[in-house]
Amino acid sequence: MLRHLGVHAPRLAFNFKSSLIHGGRGKTLTTRAFSSSAAVSPPSKAIVYEAHGEPDTVTKLVEVPAVEVKEKDVCVKMLAAPINPSDINRIQGVYPVRPEPPAVGGYEGVGEVHSVGSSVTSLSPGDWVIPSPPSFGTWQTYIVNDEKVWHKIEKGVPMEYAATITVNPLTALLMLEHCVTLNSGDAIVQNGATSMVGQCVIQIAKSRGIHNINIIRDRPGVDEVKERLKNLGADEVSTESELEVKNVKSLLGGIPEPVLGFNCVGGNAASLVLKFLRQGGTMVTYGGMSKKPVSVSTSSFIFKDISLRGFWLQKWLSTDKAEESRGMIDRLLSLVQEGKLKYKMDLAPFEDFNTALDKALGKLGSQPKQVIKF
Amino acid sequence: MLRHLGVHAPRLAFNFKSSLIHGGRGKTLTTRAFSSSAAVSPPSKAIVYEAHGEPDTVTKLVEVPAVEVKEKDVCVKMLAAPINPSDINRIQGVYPVRPEPPAVGGYEGVGEVHSVGSSVTSLSPGDWVIPSPPSFGTWQTYIVNDEKVWHKIEKGVPMEYAATITVNPLTALLMLEHCVTLNSGDAIVQNGATSMVGQCVIQIAKSRGIHNINIIRDRPGVDEVKERLKNLGADEVSTESELEVKNVKSLLGGIPEPVLGFNCVGGNAASLVLKFLRQGGTMVTYGGMSKKPVSVSTSSFIFKDISLRGFWLQKWLSTDKAEESRGMIDRLLSLVQEGKLKYKMDLAPFEDFNTALDKALGKLGSQPKQVIKF
Repeated sequence: MLRHLGVHAPRLAFNFKSSLIHGGRGKTLTTRAFSSSAAVSPPSKAIVYEAHGEPDTVTKLVEVPAVEVKEKDVCVKMLAAPINPSDINRIQGVYPVRPEPPAVGGYEGVGEVHSVGSSVTSLSPGDWVIPSPPSFGTWQTYIVNDEKVWHKIEKGVPMEYAATITVNPLTALLMLEHCVTLNSGDAIVQNGATSMVGQCVIQIAKSRGIHNINIIRDRPGVDEVKERLKNLGADEVSTESELEVKNVKSLLGGIPEPVLGFNCVGGNAASLVLKFLRQGGTMVTYGGMSKKPVSVSTSSFIFKDISLRGFWLQKWLSTDKAEESRGMIDRLLSLVQEGKLKYKMDLAPFEDFNTALDKALGKLGSQPKQVIKF
Repeated sequence: MLRHLGVHAPRLAFNFKSSLIHGGRGKTLTTRAFSSSAAVSPPSKAIVYEAHGEPDTVTKLVEVPAVEVKEKDVCVKMLAAPINPSDINRIQGVYPVRPEPPAVGGYEGVGEVHSVGSSVTSLSPGDWVIPSPPSFGTWQTYIVNDEKVWHKIEKGVPMEYAATITVNPLTALLMLEHCVTLNSGDAIVQNGATSMVGQCVIQIAKSRGIHNINIIRDRPGVDEVKERLKNLGADEVSTESELEVKNVKSLLGGIPEPVLGFNCVGGNAASLVLKFLRQGGTMVTYGGMSKKPVSVSTSSFIFKDISLRGFWLQKWLSTDKAEESRGMIDRLLSLVQEGKLKYKMDLAPFEDFNTALDKALGKLGSQPKQVIKF
């Protein structure tokens, strides 16, 4: 069962019809009426899109009036929320699971409890919470929703990490734990190692004693990139052109042949992952940055017994894994607190949302992950 | 554990050194000495190759002297054995599991018990037996080996079917039963549907109430081929060019989307199998007749949740499945006896081996499976 974040339906700011804001998969979240004596949220500001399209064209900041905080509701003041590529794809209308517009942008984030309904006991004002994935509509200053969708977290974590833990780090952890059984001393191989998931894979693998072989694209400053990934815990880092050798496995040194590979690139970079895999190994595809397909020889399937599959967080979460995901999120946040999980982010004030969006859209060159601070 | 057919080591006919004939995976089968008073086999004739190479160049007929039939041995007069593509690849030295030359050609076959050792109770002269897979060296007139490698079968089956049941039909049955759970009413899709495995897949699927969608290459006389496959039990048969449509699933009619696909071609024919598969479906590759790789889009892995793997009979048999395979062989032979499993073969007398080999090598145009009758 999917659970959705309730989003404020701005009934005055512009012409939203009641019931028009949807969660994912066709479930309609109706707007709420409230009596003048009820507890209400503060008015909110939200990044809304009324139709699918390019995010810098279709999104706008709207003022959202107060809504009632019912007895089981929790009103959360959002602290931070990132702009992820999948947020952009949802607004463009090209992501398979997405809210129908008009909708509030954003998927993950972190907030502080502002007020609670009369029967809420699990949360108190001041608590830090994140919406349990899957969620929708985190690009707004206040969100009111049922207490059970909120997952309380420790306050010691930097807010930009708490705001970004449920997409990329969770993907990395799930791929390492749910694809094949990995033991300390085993090895994995991945391409796209500089991606946020890639960096998380390196660090989580290291924390579990799993060797990791990393493939990166040829680029300027490659030595610096290698150094950075090795500092995170990478055993080996090679560019695609460095792997144009007859037998890539000769580069493994003392590292065992990888039993598992991750592919977020496709094309040649995926073929390199396959070359590293040991007999009976598995390659998991979770992205396709090169926009090229994965090509596999017949003998890889028959004689090398390679298996290929995909991983999609949204699909995993749709199979009633909400509880399990909370435990994994806590583990990931502990790694952050222990200094064992880090990645680069830019915190941008909410008023600079448009600039942050341009950066996330790649209009201003290569940029770290953009995280909005409300 | 692999078990191997003992092969006669011809000690006089030509210069074989003792112990030079090997089974697969490096296991050496030594030649046998026998005293003049022991039970012995008749002399045998065998198709032998002394080195890897093109089969029409490196194979020759040799006379093999009698060998001792020890107390647990069974001497079998071979009745028939086919020339399979994998036999050719073994002789060429390009098949990953193969005996080292000098070796007797052939892998499967059927024979009649000629004599048994003093402590053999499970078999008697006149019984029909097939070597339990995996085996080696069936292209010879007499084979002596331990009673436990011989699987007794009903005599009612035509010898050419008994001789060919452990490679192609067993592959088809295993792929239908061991890849995903299929229930009556489910559907599968395959390319290379006119291959021997393809024809077996159609008939076994039909016998289990499983719908089957079949893809064949464009060729002259396509209507006749379609008619023939439909007579075997094919629900749908389409050529690759007929499937150059926007949505192949519109061609399914009332048949459910296939949960499982078989690929023995690669290239475009594999992509067509993937297009037919339902969300979460699996494609199993067991051959690559086009010599083109399998190409898969990123979205097939992530959003369509497709899995890909291979099937190789030799691998399956190497994991201690000898007993299980005997039961499956009996089931397949029952289907043959019930008229539910048929495929086209040519029975060629042993003295015409060279012509049969030329046919199997494709030198004389498209030909049915060649089965040698000893």
